[in-house]
Amino acid sequence: MSKSTGRDDEKKIRASEQEIVEDGASQPGKTDRRGFMRGAGLVGAGFIGAGALAKGVGGSTWGELLQAKAARAADKPGQLDAHVPPGKLDDYYGLWSGGQSGEIRLLGIPSMREIKRIPVMNRDSATGWGRDDWSKQLLGGRDSGDTHHVHMSYKDGTYDGRYIYVNDKANARLARVDCRTMECDAMTDIPNSQGTHGIFPQRHDTGLVLCNSEFRTPQPNDGRDLDDPKAYGAMHTAIDGESMEVKWQVLVEGNMDLCATDYEGKYSFATCYNSEGGVNLEGMMAADRDHLYVFNLAAIEKAVKQKKTIKVGDGKVPVVDARGKDGPYVQRVPIPKSPHGVNMSPDGKYAVCSGKLSPTVSVVDVRKLDDVFAGKIKPRDAVVAEPEVGLGPLHTAFDGRGNAYTSIFIDSVITKWNIDKAIEAFDDESVDPIVEKIDVHYQVGHTNASMSETKEADGKWLIALCKFSKDRFLNVGPLHHENDQLIDISGSKMRLVHDGPAYPEPHDCVLVRRDIIHPEKVTPRDGPRFAFYEKMAKEDGVNLMKDNKVIRKGKGKVRVYMTSAAPVYSLGEFRVKSGDEVQVIQTNLDGIEDLSHGFCVSNHDVNMVVNPMDTRSITFTAGAPGVYWYYCPWFCHALHLEMRGRMIVEA
Amino acid sequence: MSKSTGRDDEKKIRASEQEIVEDGASQPGKTDRRGFMRGAGLVGAGFIGAGALAKGVGGSTWGELLQAKAARAADKPGQLDAHVPPGKLDDYYGLWSGGQSGEIRLLGIPSMREIKRIPVMNRDSATGWGRDDWSKQLLGGRDSGDTHHVHMSYKDGTYDGRYIYVNDKANARLARVDCRTMECDAMTDIPNSQGTHGIFPQRHDTGLVLCNSEFRTPQPNDGRDLDDPKAYGAMHTAIDGESMEVKWQVLVEGNMDLCATDYEGKYSFATCYNSEGGVNLEGMMAADRDHLYVFNLAAIEKAVKQKKTIKVGDGKVPVVDARGKDGPYVQRVPIPKSPHGVNMSPDGKYAVCSGKLSPTVSVVDVRKLDDVFAGKIKPRDAVVAEPEVGLGPLHTAFDGRGNAYTSIFIDSVITKWNIDKAIEAFDDESVDPIVEKIDVHYQVGHTNASMSETKEADGKWLIALCKFSKDRFLNVGPLHHENDQLIDISGSKMRLVHDGPAYPEPHDCVLVRRDIIHPEKVTPRDGPRFAFYEKMAKEDGVNLMKDNKVIRKGKGKVRVYMTSAAPVYSLGEFRVKSGDEVQVIQTNLDGIEDLSHGFCVSNHDVNMVVNPMDTRSITFTAGAPGVYWYYCPWFCHALHLEMRGRMIVEA
Repeated sequence: MSKSTGRDDEKKIRASEQEIVEDGASQPGKTDRRGFMRGAGLVGAGFIGAGALAKGVGGSTWGELLQAKAARAADKPGQLDAHVPPGKLDDYYGLWSGGQSGEIRLLGIPSMREIKRIPVMNRDSATGWGRDDWSKQLLGGRDSGDTHHVHMSYKDGTYDGRYIYVNDKANARLARVDCRTMECDAMTDIPNSQGTHGIFPQRHDTGLVLCNSEFRTPQPNDGRDLDDPKAYGAMHTAIDGESMEVKWQVLVEGNMDLCATDYEGKYSFATCYNSEGGVNLEGMMAADRDHLYVFNLAAIEKAVKQKKTIKVGDGKVPVVDARGKDGPYVQRVPIPKSPHGVNMSPDGKYAVCSGKLSPTVSVVDVRKLDDVFAGKIKPRDAVVAEPEVGLGPLHTAFDGRGNAYTSIFIDSVITKWNIDKAIEAFDDESVDPIVEKIDVHYQVGHTNASMSETKEADGKWLIALCKFSKDRFLNVGPLHHENDQLIDISGSKMRLVHDGPAYPEPHDCVLVRRDIIHPEKVTPRDGPRFAFYEKMAKEDGVNLMKDNKVIRKGKGKVRVYMTSAAPVYSLGEFRVKSGDEVQVIQTNLDGIEDLSHGFCVSNHDVNMVVNPMDTRSITFTAGAPGVYWYYCPWFCHALHLEMRGRMIVEA
Repeated sequence: MSKSTGRDDEKKIRASEQEIVEDGASQPGKTDRRGFMRGAGLVGAGFIGAGALAKGVGGSTWGELLQAKAARAADKPGQLDAHVPPGKLDDYYGLWSGGQSGEIRLLGIPSMREIKRIPVMNRDSATGWGRDDWSKQLLGGRDSGDTHHVHMSYKDGTYDGRYIYVNDKANARLARVDCRTMECDAMTDIPNSQGTHGIFPQRHDTGLVLCNSEFRTPQPNDGRDLDDPKAYGAMHTAIDGESMEVKWQVLVEGNMDLCATDYEGKYSFATCYNSEGGVNLEGMMAADRDHLYVFNLAAIEKAVKQKKTIKVGDGKVPVVDARGKDGPYVQRVPIPKSPHGVNMSPDGKYAVCSGKLSPTVSVVDVRKLDDVFAGKIKPRDAVVAEPEVGLGPLHTAFDGRGNAYTSIFIDSVITKWNIDKAIEAFDDESVDPIVEKIDVHYQVGHTNASMSETKEADGKWLIALCKFSKDRFLNVGPLHHENDQLIDISGSKMRLVHDGPAYPEPHDCVLVRRDIIHPEKVTPRDGPRFAFYEKMAKEDGVNLMKDNKVIRKGKGKVRVYMTSAAPVYSLGEFRVKSGDEVQVIQTNLDGIEDLSHGFCVSNHDVNMVVNPMDTRSITFTAGAPGVYWYYCPWFCHALHLEMRGRMIVEA
C-alpha cells in the first residue's frame, strides 16, 4: 500500500473531482476520462480486425456536439425538484432489473433511493430466498440468474399494478412478482431456449408475455447438429401472464435480442443482430443490414389451433416453424446494422429500432404492417424515418410530446430527437430532427422515461443506465458500481440532476406513477404458497395460527410448528436427534405493519424472514449433539435480542 | 386488489405524506404512526408479564421532549451541505454492515448513496461469491450470515485504511476485507461460540480483534450439560488481525453483547445483559443490575504464555477460565439494567454503556480500571456518571467536542448530552447534562458519527440506523427497508437531513474520512488467492496471462484455461463430455479501470465476475449433450453482446 499523508491524498482527490465536474464536454487526449471507451472501442476493433466498427467512427459526432451546445444556450432547462426531503414520498416507483445480481429493485423516483430489493433468481441471505422450502421449489435448484428487463402487466395501454415480469438470461426463465406483496410468486422455465433476453407483455391487456431467445442452438438441442450452426435456430416464446404457462413458440433462423409489443395486441417484435448466423464476432457482423422480426400473433395462434406445428425437444409446447423466409407468421424488416433496442412510441404508431453498429435509428410505422403481411408493400417500406443520432444507439424513450430520447453507447450521450421531423427528414435532407444531446457518464445502455412504455408517457424524468461509473464515485477498488443518472426532461433543455450508483448490472428500468401500485401492508394468506402450507398443516392436524408442535414424521424426520409474536417464539425450546432432517414451520402472528420476524439457527447456515401474518418453512439437518440457539434476526422489539430459544440436539 | 381510481389514490398518498411531514413531534392516539412501537412494547410487556419493561415507561420523556423543543429555539442548526451534485465526490466512506444480507456495504457520505456491495457471508449471484472456487473454500459450505459490526483496522488511535473486519452472528465467524480490492480475503470460524455479536479491533494498533459470544452454551458443547444452563458459559475471543488466527479465549459465566477496546491496548470490554444466566425472557430480565466485563489483556496473555489455561472442545485454542468472580483477568462493573452498547469517547477516557432497560447510560472512567484490578477501589467506583437519557438507550456516538449522542430505541430519539456535565450531575442533581433530543423515524438501533470511533472524531455527520421505516417511503408490501437517517451535528442544534432506505438489517456503521482509504484500480495479483491459482497453473504447465488450454485431468475432470479481453474470449469454443466436472479458469487481460468481464454458462447456473487483471475459477457439471453458449455478463464494450462462445457437450 502506498504511504502518503492524508493531506496529500485529499489534494489529489480534490484535483480529480475538479476534473470530473469540468468534463461536461469531453477532453480529447485524456484517455482516463470520457475518452476511454472510444479507446476501448478501438482496441476492440483492432482485436477483431477494424472493419465494421471503424466505419462509423468517422461520423460527425464532435460537430454535432458543438452544434447542440450552441442550440442549448437558447433553451430552458426543466425545473423539477429532485430533492425529496425526510418524510416526503417519491412520485414514481422505479422498477429496476438487477442484472447478474438476479434480483429486482424498486427505487423511489426522483430521489433515486432503493426502497426494496426483491430476490428473484438469486439466493438471498437476508430473506432466506433460495433457502426456504417454497422458494427452493420455485427456483428448482438454480439460484443464480441474470435479470435484464422488468415490465409491469398492462390494461388498455397502461400499467395495471398487478404483476412485474422479469427474464433470466442466464438460465432461460421468466419470473413474476405479485405487486400485492412485492414477492416473486411464479417462475417458468422456457423450453428450447438459451439466453432469454428481451421480454414484453402485451399492452392492450396482459395477456401474453413474449420472450426472445438471444442464442441460436440446435433445435432440438440434444447432441445433434453440434457442428452445423447453419441448422441452429431460436425461439420467440409466448407465456400466459396469468397462469405463467408456455402457450407456444415460433422458431426462427436468426437470433433475437430486444422485444416489444404494439398497443393493439396484433404484433410483437424482436431485433435480430445476427441474421448471418455467425458464431463469432466476424461472423455476426458480416452483413450491412440485419432486421426486425415482426410476429403476427393472430396468424400464429391460428396455426397453433390448427396444429400446423412441429415438435421440438419434449414436444410439450407447440412450435410454429417460421425459419428461412417471410410468410404469414413472421416478416423481417431490414434494419442497418446489428439493431439492438426496439421501443414503441406512446401513441402506438412507431416501433423505433436502434442500429448499434449504425449511427441511425430506424422508425417502423406499425400501421403499415398489415400491408406488409398482406404482401402489398415490402417490409422495408414500413420504415418511415432513419435519423442519424450518434455512434452506438441502443434504446429509445419518449416524452409523450413527440420527442424521442436515444441512448448512445460509444458517444456517451442521450440524443433527443423529434419523431415528426425525423419522418420529414427521411425525404428532405435539409430538415434536422436532432433537438439536443446531453453527456452521460459513461457508456449508457438502456434509457427509459416516466411512464414512457405506456400511452400515458408524461415526459418528466429520464434515466440513463450507464455501464461504467469510473471516477464518478469514491474509489472502491477494481469492481465498480454502475451509474444510473437522472435527467429532468420537463423543459426544452435536458438537465442532469443526479448520479445514482447501482450494483451491477441493472440493464433496464421502467418508471411507474405511484398511484398505480397498491401493495398490502401484511401478507395476504392466499395463493399457492399458502395452499402448500395449509395442506401440510391439515395433514399434521395443526392450526398454523396457534399450534406449537414437534411432530416426528417417521425415522429421521421432524416437523416443528411454532408461532412468533414480539418478542417471543411460542416454542422456547425443542429437541431433535443429531442427523435429523428438521423442518421448521413458523407463523408470524404480529399483524402490525413492518413487524417482520425470522428464524435463524446458530452455526447451521439456516435463516429466513417471516413477514407480518406470513407462514414460511425451512428444512435443514441437525448438527452434532449439543445446544444450538435459534434467534430472531429481524429487529422487532426493545427485547428483540432476548427473542430466542434452544434447539437441543441429542445423540 | 382494491379497485380505485388513480386520482383517489393520489389524494390518499398526499394526505398520508402530509401526516409524515407534520409528525416532527409525536401525535398521541395515532397508533399507526410514531406511537406504534410504544404500543408494541406494551404488547410485548403483556406477553412477558408487564414487570420490568413497564417500570421505565412512566419516565418523563414527554416532558423532556417539550423542554428540549424550547431549548432548540435558541440554538443554531448546522449548515453542512448534504447535496452531492453529479460528478462531485462524497467526503466520507460509510462502512455499513448488511445484517442478514450477509454483506458489507460502502456508502458515500453525505450523499448516503451505496457505492459498493461487498458479498461476505452470503452467496452473491452477481459476482459468483459463494460459487467460484476460491470463495467457496473461504465460506466452507455456509453461505448465509448475519453481519453486525464493521470496524477498520487502527494505528495510533485512528483508522489505517488496511482492513475492514465484520462478524457473523449466525455462524460465529469473523471475516476480513482487504481495502486494496474491497473484497473479503479471510474468514475465521470462532470455536466454542454461538451468536458472535460485538467485535472490536485494538485501537492503539490492530493487533487483536476481540469478539464476543452472545449466546451461552455448555462448554464444551458436545451433548453434556444440555439441561443445566447454570453450567453454560460464553467466550471472549482474541483473533490476530493480520494472520486471522484465533489466539486465545476467555470463558465467562454470563453472556456478552457489544464489544469495545480502549485506546491504549490495555483493556477490552463486553456488555452483559444476562448476568442471570436465564434461558427465557423472565430469566434474562430478573436482576436490576447486570455488568460490563472488563478484560485485562496483559494478564490474560501472561496466563496464556504460562499455560494457565484449560482445554475446551478440540482444545486447539488456549482458554482462560474466568467464570464466577472478579479476578486478575476480568472485572465486572455493575451497570443497570441489561446494558447493550459500549462506546469509547475519542479522548480515550470513558467507556459509555447504555442501559437498554434502564433510562440511563453509565460512564466508566477507564483511567480508574488499573485501581479496580489492583483491588484499590470497587468496580462500581469506576462509574463516574449515569445521566438519564430516555427510554431504551442503545448506543453512543461522539463529536470530539465533549458531547455524546445516544440512540434511544423506545422513545425514537437521539439524545445529545454533555459528558463533563453528566459527571458534574452525578454529584449535583441541579446540573442538567441533556443538550437536545431529536426525533428519528423510527426505533433507532445503532448510531455513529464521522470518525467517532477514533481520536479524530470530527463532529460533522451522525447516522441514526432506524429499525423501522413504516410510512417514510413508498409502500412496498409487507417487508420494508429500514431507515438510515443522516443528521448534521456540526451546529449547536441537530438537523435531520436525509432518510436513507436500507435493505435489512444494517446494524452498525462507521464513517471514515475519504483520504484514509486507497483502493487499487486493477487487481493486485498477490496474496493467497493468486498463490492458489499460480500453483494450479504451474501444475498444468499453463501461463495464466496468455494460454488457452483444455486439459483433461483423469476420468471425468476437465480444466479449461482461457483469457478475456473486450469483446472476446480467447476460446470461442471448447468440448467436454456430458457429466464431466468442468473447471473454468479465466484471466481478464484488460487492465483498464472498471473493465470487468465474467463467465456465465447458459442453463448451468454458473456465473462469476473477473475484474481487471484478475484470475478466477468456477467448477460445475456439464449437462446433457448439446450446445451451451457461455457469455460475458459484464457490459464491457459496444460488442459486449457478441462476447460469447460455445461449450459443446458430447455424449
